This record gives sequence, structure tokens and C-alpha cells, in this order.
Amino acid sequence: MKTRDEALALDAADPLAPLRGQFALAPNTIYLNGNSLGVPPAAAAQRAQVVIAAEWGEGLIRSWNNAGWFGMPRRLGNKLAPLIGAAHNEVVVTDSISVNLFKLLSAMLRVQKQRDAKRRVIVAERGDFPNDLYIAQGLVKQLDGACELRLIDDPSELPAALQPDTAVAMITQVNYRSGYMHDMAALTQLIHARGALALWDLAHSAGAVPVDLNGVGADGAVGCTYKYLNGGPGAPAYVWVPHRHQNAFDQPLSGWWGHRAPFAMDPAFQPDDGIGRFLCGTQPMVSLALVECGLDVFLQTDMQAIRDKSLALTDLFIELVETRCDEFPLRIITPREHAERGSQVSVAHQHGYEVMQALIARGVIGDYREPQVLRFGFTPLYTRYVDAWDAVEALRDVLANETWRAPEFAARVAVT
Amino acid sequence: MKTRDEALALDAADPLAPLRGQFALAPNTIYLNGNSLGVPPAAAAQRAQVVIAAEWGEGLIRSWNNAGWFGMPRRLGNKLAPLIGAAHNEVVVTDSISVNLFKLLSAMLRVQKQRDAKRRVIVAERGDFPNDLYIAQGLVKQLDGACELRLIDDPSELPAALQPDTAVAMITQVNYRSGYMHDMAALTQLIHARGALALWDLAHSAGAVPVDLNGVGADGAVGCTYKYLNGGPGAPAYVWVPHRHQNAFDQPLSGWWGHRAPFAMDPAFQPDDGIGRFLCGTQPMVSLALVECGLDVFLQTDMQAIRDKSLALTDLFIELVETRCDEFPLRIITPREHAERGSQVSVAHQHGYEVMQALIARGVIGDYREPQVLRFGFTPLYTRYVDAWDAVEALRDVLANETWRAPEFAARVAVT
Repeated sequence: MKTRDEALALDAADPLAPLRGQFALAPNTIYLNGNSLGVPPAAAAQRAQVVIAAEWGEGLIRSWNNAGWFGMPRRLGNKLAPLIGAAHNEVVVTDSISVNLFKLLSAMLRVQKQRDAKRRVIVAERGDFPNDLYIAQGLVKQLDGACELRLIDDPSELPAALQPDTAVAMITQVNYRSGYMHDMAALTQLIHARGALALWDLAHSAGAVPVDLNGVGADGAVGCTYKYLNGGPGAPAYVWVPHRHQNAFDQPLSGWWGHRAPFAMDPAFQPDDGIGRFLCGTQPMVSLALVECGLDVFLQTDMQAIRDKSLALTDLFIELVETRCDEFPLRIITPREHAERGSQVSVAHQHGYEVMQALIARGVIGDYREPQVLRFGFTPLYTRYVDAWDAVEALRDVLANETWRAPEFAARVAVT
Repeated sequence: MKTRDEALALDAADPLAPLRGQFALAPNTIYLNGNSLGVPPAAAAQRAQVVIAAEWGEGLIRSWNNAGWFGMPRRLGNKLAPLIGAAHNEVVVTDSISVNLFKLLSAMLRVQKQRDAKRRVIVAERGDFPNDLYIAQGLVKQLDGACELRLIDDPSELPAALQPDTAVAMITQVNYRSGYMHDMAALTQLIHARGALALWDLAHSAGAVPVDLNGVGADGAVGCTYKYLNGGPGAPAYVWVPHRHQNAFDQPLSGWWGHRAPFAMDPAFQPDDGIGRFLCGTQPMVSLALVECGLDVFLQTDMQAIRDKSLALTDLFIELVETRCDEFPLRIITPREHAERGSQVSVAHQHGYEVMQALIARGVIGDYREPQVLRFGFTPLYTRYVDAWDAVEALRDVLANETWRAPEFAARVAVT
């Protein structure tokens, strides 16, 4: 692409373009960080008012029934299911991805131990989002040697790591840092061939790439709603368990929402039949309700249309970085192969932190990940081709004029 | 009390009366269920708009720093601390009470095991809110016999239950069903004398009765923010650990928010020094932010003033039930002794379910707990003396006219 007008022409022909109007977008901002925090659906502000003023304020305690609060984790799970190839009553929206991962890892280790006591190892990637490793480490420590975490440094090491002692392979479909996407079907098949269970983290894929959990025969999955699904900052996450495993999976966070009769006040826990047993405690209703606003936008399109635009956007961004910033020491670390690419483009630069601060100061919002990585996320529901053009022009300008060298862009902000 | 005017006179002289204006109260409703779900602070609706439109919509990803999102669990914990006798940096507002209980029980069992391997029993009350027992049961099952749950049927059995094998006594300060309040100081002393740790659940006490966790020397506590603290439906809960235990308590839900350097992307988990290690995953910011609106009202008064009014309200309600409903088969099961009473009055009636439905139909909202119990909660921040009068008059009318026998009040609503 040679001119901005060509990008505008692509936007004019984009079948997803009308959906952009369903988001509350900040003025004078090119937002390429929907892979970290999606923007607010336009409906979210009004929905919050309804939940607070009408459901909470007037309905009061009756809203647990009358406004469907108690059933919301299941109802939203069913709305989300088609986006990830899940069936009805296989998903609940609840808790955080961390807590859900703990539930699922615990359940999988337990069921594997019952089948074959020597299967006690969790296999994962060292380069995975560290939180997933932390949760596995917490479980390993709690179980005091009854299980173990085995880390691989490269996906190619997976076959060798899947030994007869392996209980679970926990893999994030799209890597948070590089944007590399695994072949979920092939890996699930490999994991099963080795007698292990396949646990997928969809944080960086759901809502951006088509996912077919039942199609590939996966065994469990977790994901968050606040990235490509636009559910709101820290909005509750989800957990998927296929019907065939649900009643064999016992998870230890057995709170009252997972009881088969939560209001019977039975002092003994009896897990719900089905996905409900993956619920635990009372959920934050205002945040949970807003998840629906994001999901509703997806009902108006389909994942293949989203994937097509995602690849077109990331192809264009890669092309423009290569052609218009070719004089600068940038290295694109996201795969060129479509089959290996999620919906972000990661670009390494020795002063990546400062460069990103300079871009943000110009209204081009991506983010930075140690070490050196500038991340640019593309959310097809609201990102335009012209945004890709303008972002690369801003990058070129920041590098050409070395504006990133200004002292204000060097200071690391302490997050407290 | 003989007349409604006497109740109105008490309201006119009530020093807490002006705080009622800081809540968004439903019209034509006497709300006596703040012990289950508090009402919205008037500030909540506007605060939600700021979080959604300004912080999420305009601040976008920058709000994790700039709007203080990342630090909110600690900041709100510090705001809540004075209400429960906790010190600065001893409380975080996060996750659900269930998840926090799992963290704390796990940490306490682990530390006790290290000190004395035979201390492996959790002592609890069979009549406790069942969820607390469910969480303990989930942990017992997960640890596969490495710990055990011992239930007592009456508080008087506690001394006998605290054996040399006891690791933790988990006690809810105010019973959800009867409103009975334990002597936290005496029990903590007893529990310590037997070498066990004292874990308190404050769900039905915090915000309604003065709590002095450090004063009594307790070892850990959990509580929710959506009852007397008016944080919103299902709003995040809190966990308290005193400074002296913090770095000895390892909890297994070791998510990235509990890491000492969450953004360093270290593949090895290193717990934060201090209360931060009780954080786990990303929190639901819209719901979490609303918790502050409730806490801000408490800053304008003090727990002793709240307790004084709470006892006056519950005394009055008990007196009125006894004097004005004496011809009906009601049995007050909440203790008459102030020292043994929380901030609710529970009244048993053979057809309690139907009676409560008839009351709700008249705009008097309490709730029902199996078996037979009508619960009436008194939230001194917004409940008036005249509300107690009017509620008892409604109860008398429902019983005298037997309106509760109408078929529409018999149907149990299935909660789904």
C-alpha cells in the first residue's frame, strides 16, 4: 500500500465497518490495545444504569431471581459458547481466569490420578503468560509434591515433554508477547495420543480468531472477557468443560453457587450436575452484566468475517512497517504465516518502552512487554485500515525524529 | 412503644438520620434485607458512569495506572480496615468470600502443618452459612485426607472440639440464620490457648457491629462488601491477615496480582511481601469501584454510633413483635442479650415462607431461610424507627387477615 487513500478505500468496502458505531471510542485516539483491554460497547453505560438504579435500587434482593442475576454466569456462558465452539451448558462466565485455571488444573490432575497414579505432571510453556505458570506453581506447592510442572522453551519440545507421567498440557492458544498462534487441533490430537488432557487458555484468541473447542476435542478451557470480547476492565472470566467430562471433574473451589441446591442450606456440598459445578461464590453483578454488551455485538457477525478482517489488518500493518519504517532497527516477531498468527503484531525495538510512550503521547495506544516488545492489537470490530496506516506513520515519525528520546518517555511508571 | 408517633420522635432525634439521604432508596418500600444485599449509595450510579465513560472509555488501558485500578484492592482495603479493627496494609478487597476463605484456610493449614504435623483439623459450626463448610469440604477433598473438618452443633461444644489435632477454628461472628453473635475476644483467646488459629467470617457483622480484629488478636478474617457495607450485588469481598502472619502465610491461588513484581513477567512466582500476596487475578473494576461509595458513608460516622442505633432498632422490633403480634404463633430466635445479637431479628413461623411472600407483596422486604425463618435485617445507616413500626404492623395485618394463605404466596420460585 502506498497511500492513505487506499486504506480509506478498504474501510469503505469493509462489511464490518458499521459495527464500529456500537463502541464508545475515545476521540483523537488510535486504539491498538484491544488485545489487553477492549473498549466500551456503546450500550455499557446505559446497562450499568439499569443494573444499579432499577435492578439493584428498586428490585433489590428480588433481582437475584427477577433480573436473572443468579443465572447470569450460565446465561452469558451460553451466549459466549458459539464464539469458541462450545455447546449449550458447557460454559460459565465467573471469577478470574486465574481462579478458573486453578479449578480446571485441580480437576484434571485429580481425574488423571484416579485413572493412572503416575500421571502427575503439568506441561506448559516457559514463555506463556506468567500468570498461568504462577497458578500451576501454587497448585504444585499446595499439593506438596503430588504433582509437578514441566516447562518447555519452544513448542517443538512438546512431543518430547509429553511423557507417560503427563497429566495435563496447559497451553495458551495465542502467545501474549509474540502473537504466535498454536495449531489447536494438531496439538490436542498429540496430547491425547500421549494420554494427557488438553487445557487451553483462550485469553488472546477468543473473539479474534475462530476457536472450535469441541471440534478439536479439547478437554477444558479458560479465557477472559475483557480483551477482544470488550467486557470491561477485569470483567469476570469464563471456563469451558465439555459435557463428556463435566461430572467427572471435581474442582476444589466448591462454593455454594456450584451446589446442586444452593438454597437448600444443606451442610454437605453436592456438586451440580454439569457446568454449574465450576461456579464458586457470589459474582460481581454490575461488572458481569456488562459482559453481555460486548457479546451482543458478536451476534451481529461471525468469527470468520472477524478473522478475515483481522488477517487483512495485521497483514497491512506488517507490510507498512516493512515498507515505511525500513530504515529503522525494528524486528517483527509475530509470524507471517496466517495459521500461526493471532490478532496482534509485535515489533521489537531496543528502546521499545520509550518508543511506545512516545506513540501513546501522540494518541496511538499500543503497549509494551519486556523485553523490547511493542505490541499492537487489532480488534476487527472497531479498528479501521486507516488506523493501521496512521499508526505506522506515527511510528515512523517517532523514530525519524527520535522523539522517543525525550526524558519524559524514559521514566518507568511504577504500578502500585 | 404504643404509637407510631413515638417511632417518628425517635427518628427525629436520631443522629444518624441525615445519612439516610446518601442512599438511593426504593419508593414505598421498607427494606429490611440489608443483611443480605445493601441498598445503592446515592453516589454509585454516577461513579459507575465515571468508571465506564471516563476511566474505561477515555483512559483506556492507561487507567490501570492513572485511575488507580491496579491499586484499588489495597486502597479500598485500607479504607475498610478501621471498620473491622484492622491496620493499614492488612486488608485487600478482592475475589469472593468463598475464594478468600479457600486462600486463608489453605495458608493456615500449611503453616500449622509446618509447626506441628498432627495439627490437621478445621473446626467449624454445622449451623454456619453452608458455603463456608463447602469451601472447607472442597479443600479437605483436594488435600486427600491431609486435613479434616470437624463440625460442632452448638457453640458450647467448641472447647471440647479444640483438640491437639486442631489447626484452625473457622467461625462466623454473626450467624446468618439466627443472628446470634459470638464473643470474638473470648473465643479467640480459647482457640489460641488450644494452639489453633482463629479464622473469622465477618459477612454478617462488618458494618453493623464494631469488630476489633487486632484487639482480639485474631489470625485471619474474610467478609463481604455487599451486605451492611452496601458495595453492590456480588461486589468483591475482602481478606484480612495481620502483619505478624502475612509473610508466613502462603496461599495457593498465587496469581500475578499477588506477585512482588507483577509486570516483570518472571516465570517464577515470588509472593509479594505483605497482604498483596492474598491477591490473585485481575479484578472486576466497575463492581470494585462501587465498593468505595459504600465505604465513604461510613467515614462520616463511627461503628459505636451504628451499633447503638442497631441495638435500639432490633430492641424495638422485638418489643413490637412481642406486644403487637402476641396472638400469633411467632417465635423470636435471635438472642435478647445485646452481647449475643448481631443486627437482624429472626422470627420463626410454621408458614414462614408464605408470610414473607405476603410481606414482600406489601413492600416490606425481609427474606426467608429454611426452615421457617423470617429474617429482618436492620441497617442503621438508612433504616428508621418508623420502618420497624410499620413492618410489624404489616406483619400483624398479614397474620390477622391470613393474607399469607393466598395461593400466590405458596409457590416456591425456582432460582435458576
